[in-house]
Amino acid sequence: MSDETLPSDATLCYAGEPLELVDLDAAGIKFDQRGLVPCVVQQHGTGEVLMVAWMNQESLRLTLQTGTTWFWSRSRSELWNKGATSGNVQQLKALLVDCDGDTLLAVVDSPGPACHTGHRSCMFRAIRREG
Amino acid sequence: MSDETLPSDATLCYAGEPLELVDLDAAGIKFDQRGLVPCVVQQHGTGEVLMVAWMNQESLRLTLQTGTTWFWSRSRSELWNKGATSGNVQQLKALLVDCDGDTLLAVVDSPGPACHTGHRSCMFRAIRREG
Repeated sequence: MSDETLPSDATLCYAGEPLELVDLDAAGIKFDQRGLVPCVVQQHGTGEVLMVAWMNQESLRLTLQTGTTWFWSRSRSELWNKGATSGNVQQLKALLVDCDGDTLLAVVDSPGPACHTGHRSCMFRAIRREG
Repeated sequence: MSDETLPSDATLCYAGEPLELVDLDAAGIKFDQRGLVPCVVQQHGTGEVLMVAWMNQESLRLTLQTGTTWFWSRSRSELWNKGATSGNVQQLKALLVDCDGDTLLAVVDSPGPACHTGHRSCMFRAIRREG
């Protein structure tokens, strides 16, 4: 996190609670048998969930190093810097990890649509409830 | 969705866009080789991401039928009505599905902590960036 988003004397909060800052090695991230962990991407400020994608160890490292989101494309079997082609690169504000280390949450600033369909969020369909 | 949250003449929106309402059969949900799909749980109104858990076909059906979240516990190998023990049952406001059908987003009203640690959200740790 840059000094701009996290001054050394500030406390970063999420869901109304102060965040615990942990080193990557101490985060205990559990990659699945494919070497992947799901990452929820959320717009800073508005809270919109934009997409869910998968990170491997290398994309996680690149995300932390560059401050932009990198994922592992399961269909193309390659590393993928989100928005590098479309211009809608996601600037990382914070990378959170859940209680048991098997899910990540990237809080980002995403200038444009996150979905390949042109929608702001990949979540543009709701399932109709019966009855 | 109850009439209260979705009057028949209302348009449900997410991320500033109207949602497409789809039937479960038409949603094209892709369960993985274990028969599971990840489900992000988000608090209605505040946008807090509370947790990510896994649904199988049966828990998805129960969620839509009961209007509360049901998951498949990978560690206990059983269906799990979130909050049934703690009392923090999550009331479903909407169940969204992403563009390629391999992720769900449950927008809920969760009265209390969602995390077994007592934290409001399972996302209470941030990974420190190097440099």
